[in-house]
Amino acid sequence: MNKVFVVGIGPGGAEYLTGQARAALEASQVLCGYTLYVELIAPLYPGKETHTSGMRQELERCRWALETAQRGKTVALVCSGDSGIYGMASPLLILSPEYPEVAVEVVAGLTAANAGAAVLGAPLGHDFCVISLSDLLTPWETIEKRLRLAAQGEFALCLYNPGSRKRKDFLRTACEIVLAEGRAPDTLCGWVRNIGRPGETAKLLTLAELREEQVDMFTTVYIGNSTTQNVQGRMVTPRGYRT
Amino acid sequence: MNKVFVVGIGPGGAEYLTGQARAALEASQVLCGYTLYVELIAPLYPGKETHTSGMRQELERCRWALETAQRGKTVALVCSGDSGIYGMASPLLILSPEYPEVAVEVVAGLTAANAGAAVLGAPLGHDFCVISLSDLLTPWETIEKRLRLAAQGEFALCLYNPGSRKRKDFLRTACEIVLAEGRAPDTLCGWVRNIGRPGETAKLLTLAELREEQVDMFTTVYIGNSTTQNVQGRMVTPRGYRT
Repeated sequence: MNKVFVVGIGPGGAEYLTGQARAALEASQVLCGYTLYVELIAPLYPGKETHTSGMRQELERCRWALETAQRGKTVALVCSGDSGIYGMASPLLILSPEYPEVAVEVVAGLTAANAGAAVLGAPLGHDFCVISLSDLLTPWETIEKRLRLAAQGEFALCLYNPGSRKRKDFLRTACEIVLAEGRAPDTLCGWVRNIGRPGETAKLLTLAELREEQVDMFTTVYIGNSTTQNVQGRMVTPRGYRT
Repeated sequence: MNKVFVVGIGPGGAEYLTGQARAALEASQVLCGYTLYVELIAPLYPGKETHTSGMRQELERCRWALETAQRGKTVALVCSGDSGIYGMASPLLILSPEYPEVAVEVVAGLTAANAGAAVLGAPLGHDFCVISLSDLLTPWETIEKRLRLAAQGEFALCLYNPGSRKRKDFLRTACEIVLAEGRAPDTLCGWVRNIGRPGETAKLLTLAELREEQVDMFTTVYIGNSTTQNVQGRMVTPRGYRT
Protein backbone atom coordinates (compact mmCIF):
# COMPACT_ATOMS: atom_id res chain seq x y z
CA MET A 1 0.00 0.00 0.00
CA ASN A 2 1.27 3.52 -0.77
CA LYS A 3 1.03 4.88 2.71
CA VAL A 4 3.00 6.87 5.26
CA PHE A 5 1.97 6.78 8.89
CA VAL A 6 3.50 9.71 10.79
CA VAL A 7 3.59 8.30 14.29
CA GLY A 8 4.08 10.06 17.61
CA ILE A 9 5.77 7.55 19.91
CA GLY A 10 5.52 9.63 23.07
CA PRO A 11 8.41 10.94 25.14
CA GLY A 12 10.38 7.83 25.93
CA GLY A 13 10.17 4.08 25.88
CA ALA A 14 7.56 1.67 24.61
CA GLU A 15 5.23 2.15 27.60
CA TYR A 16 4.15 5.50 26.15
CA LEU A 17 2.98 4.09 22.82
CA THR A 18 -0.76 4.06 22.27
CA GLY A 19 -2.45 1.02 20.81
CA GLN A 20 -3.07 3.05 17.66
CA ALA A 21 0.65 3.85 17.33
CA ARG A 22 1.56 0.19 17.87
CA ALA A 23 -0.88 -0.86 15.16
CA ALA A 24 0.62 1.66 12.71
CA LEU A 25 4.19 0.51 13.44
CA GLU A 26 3.09 -3.09 13.09
CA ALA A 27 1.40 -2.40 9.74
CA SER A 28 4.51 -0.67 8.35
CA GLN A 29 7.31 -2.34 6.42
CA VAL A 30 9.86 0.41 7.10
CA LEU A 31 10.45 2.42 10.28
CA CYS A 32 12.18 5.71 9.53
CA GLY A 33 13.13 8.73 11.59
CA TYR A 34 15.76 10.43 13.66
CA THR A 35 18.24 7.78 14.85
CA LEU A 36 17.49 8.07 18.58
CA TYR A 37 13.72 7.63 18.14
CA VAL A 38 13.97 4.70 15.76
CA GLU A 39 16.34 3.00 18.20
CA LEU A 40 13.74 3.38 20.96
CA ILE A 41 11.07 1.40 19.13
CA ALA A 42 12.87 -0.80 16.58
CA PRO A 43 13.60 -3.53 19.18
CA LEU A 44 9.81 -4.05 19.47
CA TYR A 45 9.64 -4.97 15.79
CA PRO A 46 12.66 -7.14 15.08
CA GLY A 47 13.32 -7.76 11.43
CA LYS A 48 11.64 -4.61 10.14
CA GLU A 49 13.64 -2.46 7.78
CA THR A 50 14.83 0.82 9.35
CA HIS A 51 16.10 4.07 7.87
CA THR A 52 17.60 6.69 10.17
CA SER A 53 19.02 10.15 9.69
CA GLY A 54 20.38 12.93 11.87
CA MET A 55 19.01 16.17 13.31
CA ARG A 56 18.01 18.99 10.95
CA GLN A 57 17.32 16.60 8.09
CA GLU A 58 13.56 16.72 8.55
CA LEU A 59 12.57 17.60 5.00
CA GLU A 60 14.88 14.99 3.45
CA ARG A 61 13.36 12.43 5.83
CA CYS A 62 9.82 13.38 4.78
CA ARG A 63 10.78 13.08 1.11
CA TRP A 64 12.44 9.72 1.72
CA ALA A 65 9.28 8.45 3.43
CA LEU A 66 6.99 9.69 0.65
CA GLU A 67 9.26 8.34 -2.12
CA THR A 68 9.54 4.97 -0.42
CA ALA A 69 5.75 4.81 -0.05
CA GLN A 70 5.39 5.81 -3.70
CA ARG A 71 7.48 2.77 -4.59
CA GLY A 72 4.87 0.65 -2.84
CA LYS A 73 6.01 0.25 0.74
CA THR A 74 4.12 1.19 3.89
CA VAL A 75 6.32 3.52 5.91
CA ALA A 76 6.15 4.68 9.51
CA LEU A 77 7.83 8.06 9.99
CA VAL A 78 8.42 8.12 13.74
CA CYS A 79 8.56 11.26 15.85
CA SER A 80 9.22 11.84 19.51
CA GLY A 81 6.17 13.01 21.45
CA ASP A 82 3.19 13.86 19.25
CA SER A 83 3.76 13.86 15.49
CA GLY A 84 1.50 16.91 15.22
CA ILE A 85 3.11 19.16 17.87
CA TYR A 86 6.34 20.65 16.46
CA GLY A 87 6.56 17.27 14.76
CA MET A 88 6.84 15.81 11.29
CA ALA A 89 3.12 15.66 10.44
CA SER A 90 3.12 19.28 9.31
CA PRO A 91 6.10 19.17 6.86
CA LEU A 92 5.04 15.73 5.64
CA LEU A 93 1.51 16.88 4.81
CA ILE A 94 2.83 20.03 3.11
CA LEU A 95 5.04 17.92 0.82
CA SER A 96 2.45 15.20 0.25
CA PRO A 97 0.62 16.73 -2.76
CA GLU A 98 3.80 16.07 -4.78
CA TYR A 99 3.16 12.35 -4.21
CA PRO A 100 -0.50 12.01 -5.17
CA GLU A 101 -0.61 8.23 -4.89
CA VAL A 102 0.57 8.24 -1.29
CA ALA A 103 -1.92 8.37 1.59
CA VAL A 104 -0.76 10.04 4.80
CA GLU A 105 -2.23 9.10 8.18
CA VAL A 106 -1.37 11.15 11.25
CA VAL A 107 -1.10 9.19 14.51
CA ALA A 108 -0.99 11.36 17.63
CA GLY A 109 1.18 10.58 20.65
CA LEU A 110 1.86 11.88 24.13
CA THR A 111 3.65 15.19 23.73
CA ALA A 112 6.26 16.36 26.27
CA ALA A 113 3.86 19.01 27.62
CA ASN A 114 1.44 16.34 28.80
CA ALA A 115 3.93 13.64 29.77
CA GLY A 116 6.16 16.01 31.74
CA ALA A 117 3.14 17.56 33.44
CA ALA A 118 2.23 14.13 34.85
CA VAL A 119 5.74 13.82 36.30
CA LEU A 120 5.41 17.15 38.12
CA GLY A 121 1.75 16.78 39.17
CA ALA A 122 -0.82 18.75 37.17
CA PRO A 123 0.74 22.08 36.17
CA LEU A 124 -1.46 22.37 33.04
CA GLY A 125 -4.77 21.74 34.82
CA HIS A 126 -6.30 24.83 33.26
CA ASP A 127 -5.88 26.99 30.10
CA PHE A 128 -2.29 26.89 28.89
CA CYS A 129 0.10 27.92 26.10
CA VAL A 130 2.86 25.86 24.56
CA ILE A 131 5.74 27.93 23.19
CA SER A 132 9.03 26.78 21.68
CA LEU A 133 12.01 28.98 22.55
CA SER A 134 13.89 27.75 19.47
CA ASP A 135 14.55 30.55 17.01
CA LEU A 136 15.67 28.20 14.25
CA LEU A 137 12.33 28.48 12.43
CA THR A 138 10.73 31.45 14.22
CA PRO A 139 12.06 35.00 14.66
CA TRP A 140 12.92 35.74 18.29
CA GLU A 141 10.63 38.81 18.21
CA THR A 142 7.64 36.51 17.60
CA ILE A 143 8.63 34.26 20.49
CA GLU A 144 9.07 37.27 22.77
CA LYS A 145 5.67 38.70 21.81
CA ARG A 146 3.98 35.37 22.54
CA LEU A 147 5.65 35.08 25.93
CA ARG A 148 4.47 38.59 26.80
CA LEU A 149 0.87 37.96 25.76
CA ALA A 150 0.73 34.52 27.39
CA ALA A 151 1.98 36.07 30.64
CA GLN A 152 -0.63 38.84 30.43
CA GLY A 153 -3.35 36.24 29.87
CA GLU A 154 -2.51 34.36 33.09
CA PHE A 155 -2.00 31.19 31.06
CA ALA A 156 0.02 28.35 32.54
CA LEU A 157 3.02 28.02 30.25
CA CYS A 158 4.91 25.08 28.85
CA LEU A 159 8.21 25.89 27.13
CA TYR A 160 9.84 23.56 24.60
CA ASN A 161 13.50 23.87 23.58
CA PRO A 162 14.36 26.11 26.53
CA GLY A 163 18.11 25.97 25.98
CA SER A 164 21.06 24.59 24.14
CA ARG A 165 24.77 25.20 24.03
CA LYS A 166 24.27 28.02 21.55
CA ARG A 167 21.29 29.55 23.35
CA LYS A 168 22.29 29.56 26.99
CA ASP A 169 20.31 32.65 27.98
CA PHE A 170 16.99 32.04 26.21
CA LEU A 171 15.25 30.74 29.32
CA ARG A 172 16.61 33.64 31.38
CA THR A 173 15.22 36.11 28.83
CA ALA A 174 11.87 34.30 28.74
CA CYS A 175 11.60 34.45 32.55
CA GLU A 176 12.46 38.14 32.54
CA ILE A 177 9.66 38.81 30.03
CA VAL A 178 7.14 36.90 32.14
CA LEU A 179 8.30 38.69 35.30
CA ALA A 180 8.11 42.08 33.57
CA GLU A 181 4.46 41.35 32.71
CA GLY A 182 3.72 41.10 36.42
CA ARG A 183 3.89 37.41 37.19
CA ALA A 184 5.17 37.14 40.77
CA PRO A 185 8.81 36.08 41.36
CA ASP A 186 7.56 33.34 43.71
CA THR A 187 5.26 31.81 41.05
CA LEU A 188 5.69 28.05 41.15
CA CYS A 189 7.60 26.63 38.17
CA GLY A 190 9.11 23.27 37.32
CA TRP A 191 11.11 21.40 34.78
CA VAL A 192 11.48 17.78 33.69
CA ARG A 193 14.53 16.44 31.88
CA ASN A 194 14.58 13.23 29.82
CA ILE A 195 10.86 12.62 30.30
CA GLY A 196 10.12 8.90 30.31
CA ARG A 197 13.73 8.00 29.56
CA PRO A 198 16.56 6.67 31.71
CA GLY A 199 17.85 9.46 33.93
CA GLU A 200 14.53 11.32 34.11
CA THR A 201 14.89 14.19 36.58
CA ALA A 202 12.50 16.90 37.71
CA LYS A 203 12.58 19.96 39.92
CA LEU A 204 10.16 22.51 41.35
CA LEU A 205 11.40 26.05 41.83
CA THR A 206 10.19 29.65 41.80
CA LEU A 207 10.09 31.84 38.72
CA ALA A 208 12.94 33.92 40.17
CA GLU A 209 15.00 30.73 40.58
CA LEU A 210 14.06 29.48 37.12
CA ARG A 211 15.59 32.65 35.66
CA GLU A 212 18.97 31.53 37.00
CA GLU A 213 18.58 27.87 36.00
CA GLN A 214 20.75 26.19 33.36
CA VAL A 215 18.68 23.76 31.28
CA ASP A 216 19.34 21.93 28.04
CA MET A 217 17.35 20.87 25.00
CA PHE A 218 16.19 17.65 26.69
CA THR A 219 14.27 19.69 29.26
CA THR A 220 10.63 20.84 29.25
CA VAL A 221 9.80 23.85 31.43
CA TYR A 222 6.52 24.78 33.15
CA ILE A 223 5.58 28.22 34.50
CA GLY A 224 2.50 28.28 36.72
CA ASN A 225 -0.18 30.95 36.92
CA SER A 226 -1.16 32.84 40.08
CA THR A 227 -3.24 29.91 41.35
CA THR A 228 -0.58 27.22 40.85
CA GLN A 229 0.40 25.64 44.15
CA ASN A 230 2.94 23.27 45.65
CA VAL A 231 0.96 20.36 47.09
CA GLN A 232 3.45 18.20 48.98
CA GLY A 233 6.06 18.56 46.29
CA ARG A 234 3.65 18.39 43.32
CA MET A 235 3.01 21.34 41.00
CA VAL A 236 -0.77 21.76 40.68
CA THR A 237 -2.78 24.30 38.72
CA PRO A 238 -6.43 24.17 39.84
CA ARG A 239 -9.09 23.64 37.18
CA GLY A 240 -10.72 26.99 37.72
CA TYR A 241 -10.84 30.20 39.62
CA ARG A 242 -14.07 29.54 41.47
CA THR A 243 -14.20 27.31 44.52
CA MET B 1 -1.29 -0.83 48.49
CA ASN B 2 -2.80 2.58 49.37
CA LYS B 3 -2.64 4.06 45.93
CA VAL B 4 -4.72 6.03 43.44
CA PHE B 5 -3.70 6.12 39.80
CA VAL B 6 -5.39 9.01 38.01
CA VAL B 7 -5.40 7.71 34.46
CA GLY B 8 -5.97 9.55 31.19
CA ILE B 9 -7.54 7.01 28.82
CA GLY B 10 -7.39 9.22 25.73
CA PRO B 11 -10.37 10.43 23.72
CA GLY B 12 -12.13 7.23 22.81
CA GLY B 13 -11.73 3.51 22.74
CA ALA B 14 -9.00 1.20 23.94
CA GLU B 15 -6.70 1.92 20.96
CA TYR B 16 -5.81 5.28 22.52
CA LEU B 17 -4.57 3.83 25.81
CA THR B 18 -0.82 3.99 26.36
CA GLY B 19 1.05 1.00 27.72
CA GLN B 20 1.55 2.96 30.94
CA ALA B 21 -2.21 3.54 31.29
CA ARG B 22 -2.91 -0.14 30.64
CA ALA B 23 -0.41 -1.15 33.31
CA ALA B 24 -2.04 1.21 35.83
CA LEU B 25 -5.54 -0.10 35.07
CA GLU B 26 -4.25 -3.68 35.31
CA ALA B 27 -2.61 -2.98 38.68
CA SER B 28 -5.81 -1.48 40.12
CA GLN B 29 -8.50 -3.37 41.98
CA VAL B 30 -11.20 -0.75 41.39
CA LEU B 31 -11.91 1.32 38.28
CA CYS B 32 -13.81 4.49 39.14
CA GLY B 33 -14.93 7.53 37.18
CA TYR B 34 -17.66 9.13 35.14
CA THR B 35 -19.98 6.39 33.87
CA LEU B 36 -19.24 6.83 30.15
CA TYR B 37 -15.47 6.60 30.58
CA VAL B 38 -15.56 3.57 32.87
CA GLU B 39 -17.83 1.83 30.36
CA LEU B 40 -15.25 2.45 27.62
CA ILE B 41 -12.47 0.56 29.39
CA ALA B 42 -14.14 -1.81 31.87
CA PRO B 43 -14.72 -4.50 29.20
CA LEU B 44 -10.91 -4.80 28.88
CA TYR B 45 -10.68 -5.80 32.54
CA PRO B 46 -13.58 -8.17 33.17
CA GLY B 47 -14.22 -8.96 36.80
CA LYS B 48 -12.70 -5.76 38.17
CA GLU B 49 -14.82 -3.80 40.60
CA THR B 50 -16.19 -0.54 39.15
CA HIS B 51 -17.63 2.57 40.74
CA THR B 52 -19.27 5.17 38.53
CA SER B 53 -20.88 8.53 39.10
CA GLY B 54 -22.41 11.31 37.03
CA MET B 55 -21.22 14.65 35.70
CA ARG B 56 -20.42 17.46 38.14
CA GLN B 57 -19.57 15.00 40.93
CA GLU B 58 -15.83 15.36 40.48
CA LEU B 59 -14.89 16.19 44.04
CA GLU B 60 -17.03 13.40 45.51
CA ARG B 61 -15.38 11.02 43.04
CA CYS B 62 -11.89 12.12 44.12
CA ARG B 63 -12.81 11.63 47.78
CA TRP B 64 -14.29 8.23 47.08
CA ALA B 65 -11.06 7.17 45.31
CA LEU B 66 -8.86 8.46 48.14
CA GLU B 67 -11.02 6.90 50.85
CA THR B 68 -11.13 3.57 49.06
CA ALA B 69 -7.34 3.64 48.67
CA GLN B 70 -7.03 4.54 52.35
CA ARG B 71 -8.94 1.36 53.16
CA GLY B 72 -6.23 -0.57 51.34
CA LYS B 73 -7.35 -0.91 47.75
CA THR B 74 -5.53 0.23 44.64
CA VAL B 75 -7.84 2.51 42.69
CA ALA B 76 -7.75 3.80 39.11
CA LEU B 77 -9.62 7.08 38.75
CA VAL B 78 -10.20 7.23 35.00
CA CYS B 79 -10.52 10.44 32.99
CA SER B 80 -11.22 11.09 29.35
CA GLY B 81 -8.23 12.50 27.45
CA ASP B 82 -5.31 13.44 29.68
CA SER B 83 -5.89 13.29 33.44
CA GLY B 84 -3.79 16.47 33.81
CA ILE B 85 -5.53 18.69 31.22
CA TYR B 86 -8.83 19.96 32.69
CA GLY B 87 -8.87 16.51 34.28
CA MET B 88 -9.07 14.93 37.69
CA ALA B 89 -5.35 14.97 38.54
CA SER B 90 -5.54 18.52 39.78
CA PRO B 91 -8.51 18.18 42.23
CA LEU B 92 -7.26 14.76 43.34
CA LEU B 93 -3.79 16.10 44.21
CA ILE B 94 -5.28 19.09 46.01
CA LEU B 95 -7.38 16.80 48.23
CA SER B 96 -4.63 14.21 48.71
CA PRO B 97 -2.89 15.76 51.77
CA GLU B 98 -6.02 14.84 53.77
CA TYR B 99 -5.18 11.19 53.08
CA PRO B 100 -1.50 11.02 54.04
CA GLU B 101 -1.18 7.25 53.64
CA VAL B 102 -2.37 7.32 50.03
CA ALA B 103 0.11 7.67 47.16
CA VAL B 104 -1.14 9.38 44.00
CA GLU B 105 0.36 8.64 40.60
CA VAL B 106 -0.61 10.74 37.59
CA VAL B 107 -0.78 8.87 34.26
CA ALA B 108 -1.00 11.13 31.22
CA GLY B 109 -3.13 10.35 28.18
CA LEU B 110 -3.89 11.71 24.75
CA THR B 111 -5.86 14.89 25.25
CA ALA B 112 -8.52 15.99 22.75
CA ALA B 113 -6.27 18.83 21.49
CA ASN B 114 -3.70 16.33 20.22
CA ALA B 115 -6.05 13.53 19.16
CA GLY B 116 -8.41 15.84 17.28
CA ALA B 117 -5.48 17.60 15.61
CA ALA B 118 -4.40 14.28 14.09
CA VAL B 119 -7.88 13.81 12.63
CA LEU B 120 -7.74 17.23 10.92
CA GLY B 121 -4.07 17.09 9.87
CA ALA B 122 -1.61 19.13 11.93
CA PRO B 123 -3.35 22.36 13.05
CA LEU B 124 -1.17 22.65 16.17
CA GLY B 125 2.17 22.27 14.39
CA HIS B 126 3.54 25.39 16.04
CA ASP B 127 3.00 27.43 19.25
CA PHE B 128 -0.58 27.09 20.47
CA CYS B 129 -3.02 27.87 23.28
CA VAL B 130 -5.66 25.61 24.75
CA ILE B 131 -8.65 27.48 26.19
CA SER B 132 -11.87 26.10 27.66
CA LEU B 133 -14.97 28.15 26.87
CA SER B 134 -16.78 26.73 29.89
CA ASP B 135 -17.58 29.41 32.45
CA LEU B 136 -18.56 26.90 35.13
CA LEU B 137 -15.24 27.32 36.94
CA THR B 138 -13.83 30.43 35.27
CA PRO B 139 -15.36 33.90 34.94
CA TRP B 140 -16.25 34.72 31.33
CA GLU B 141 -14.12 37.91 31.51
CA THR B 142 -11.01 35.75 32.05
CA ILE B 143 -11.89 33.55 29.08
CA GLU B 144 -12.48 36.60 26.90
CA LYS B 145 -9.17 38.16 27.91
CA ARG B 146 -7.31 34.98 27.07
CA LEU B 147 -8.97 34.71 23.67
CA ARG B 148 -7.98 38.30 22.92
CA LEU B 149 -4.35 37.83 23.94
CA ALA B 150 -4.03 34.46 22.20
CA ALA B 151 -5.37 36.06 19.00
CA GLN B 152 -2.92 38.95 19.30
CA GLY B 153 -0.07 36.50 19.78
CA GLU B 154 -0.80 34.67 16.52
CA PHE B 155 -1.11 31.42 18.42
CA ALA B 156 -2.96 28.52 16.85
CA LEU B 157 -5.96 27.97 19.13
CA CYS B 158 -7.67 24.87 20.43
CA LEU B 159 -11.00 25.42 22.19
CA TYR B 160 -12.52 22.93 24.63
CA ASN B 161 -16.18 23.00 25.67
CA PRO B 162 -17.17 25.28 22.79
CA GLY B 163 -20.88 24.93 23.34
CA SER B 164 -23.76 23.32 25.15
CA ARG B 165 -27.51 23.72 25.26
CA LYS B 166 -27.16 26.49 27.84
CA ARG B 167 -24.26 28.23 26.10
CA LYS B 168 -25.25 28.30 22.46
CA ASP B 169 -23.48 31.54 21.55
CA PHE B 170 -20.11 31.05 23.31
CA LEU B 171 -18.32 29.95 20.15
CA ARG B 172 -19.83 32.84 18.19
CA THR B 173 -18.58 35.29 20.81
CA ALA B 174 -15.14 33.67 20.83
CA CYS B 175 -14.87 33.94 17.04
CA GLU B 176 -15.95 37.58 17.17
CA ILE B 177 -13.20 38.34 19.68
CA VAL B 178 -10.56 36.63 17.54
CA LEU B 179 -11.83 38.46 14.44
CA ALA B 180 -11.83 41.79 16.28
CA GLU B 181 -8.15 41.23 17.10
CA GLY B 182 -7.40 41.14 13.40
CA ARG B 183 -7.36 37.49 12.51
CA ALA B 184 -8.62 37.28 8.92
CA PRO B 185 -12.19 36.02 8.29
CA ASP B 186 -10.78 33.43 5.86
CA THR B 187 -8.40 31.95 8.46
CA LEU B 188 -8.61 28.17 8.24
CA CYS B 189 -10.44 26.56 11.18
CA GLY B 190 -11.75 23.10 11.92
CA TRP B 191 -13.67 21.04 14.40
CA VAL B 192 -13.83 17.37 15.37
CA ARG B 193 -16.79 15.81 17.15
CA ASN B 194 -16.66 12.52 19.10
CA ILE B 195 -12.91 12.15 18.59
CA GLY B 196 -11.95 8.48 18.48
CA ARG B 197 -15.51 7.35 19.18
CA PRO B 198 -18.27 5.93 17.00
CA GLY B 199 -19.71 8.72 14.87
CA GLU B 200 -16.51 10.76 14.73
CA THR B 201 -17.03 13.68 12.36
CA ALA B 202 -14.79 16.55 11.33
CA LYS B 203 -15.05 19.67 9.20
CA LEU B 204 -12.79 22.40 7.86
CA LEU B 205 -14.21 25.89 7.49
CA THR B 206 -13.20 29.54 7.65
CA LEU B 207 -13.22 31.64 10.80
CA ALA B 208 -16.19 33.59 9.41
CA GLU B 209 -18.06 30.31 8.89
CA LEU B 210 -17.06 29.00 12.31
CA ARG B 211 -18.75 32.03 13.86
CA GLU B 212 -22.09 30.76 12.48
CA GLU B 213 -21.49 27.11 13.38
CA GLN B 214 -23.55 25.23 15.96
CA VAL B 215 -21.35 22.85 17.96
CA ASP B 216 -21.88 20.88 21.16
CA MET B 217 -19.83 19.84 24.16
CA PHE B 218 -18.49 16.75 22.37
CA THR B 219 -16.71 18.97 19.86
CA THR B 220 -13.15 20.33 19.91
CA VAL B 221 -12.49 23.45 17.82
CA TYR B 222 -9.27 24.61 16.12
CA ILE B 223 -8.53 28.14 14.88
CA GLY B 224 -5.45 28.44 12.69
CA ASN B 225 -2.92 31.25 12.57
CA SER B 226 -2.06 33.30 9.47
CA THR B 227 0.20 30.53 8.12
CA THR B 228 -2.32 27.69 8.52
CA GLN B 229 -3.22 26.17 5.18
CA ASN B 230 -5.62 23.71 3.60
CA VAL B 231 -3.48 20.96 2.06
CA GLN B 232 -5.85 18.73 0.11
CA GLY B 233 -8.47 18.86 2.83
CA ARG B 234 -6.05 18.72 5.77
CA MET B 235 -5.57 21.64 8.18
CA VAL B 236 -1.83 22.24 8.51
CA THR B 237 0.05 24.83 10.55
CA PRO B 238 3.70 24.94 9.44
CA ARG B 239 6.37 24.47 12.09
CA GLY B 240 7.81 27.95 11.68
CA TYR B 241 7.78 31.24 9.88
CA ARG B 242 11.05 30.81 8.02
CA THR B 243 11.25 28.69 4.91
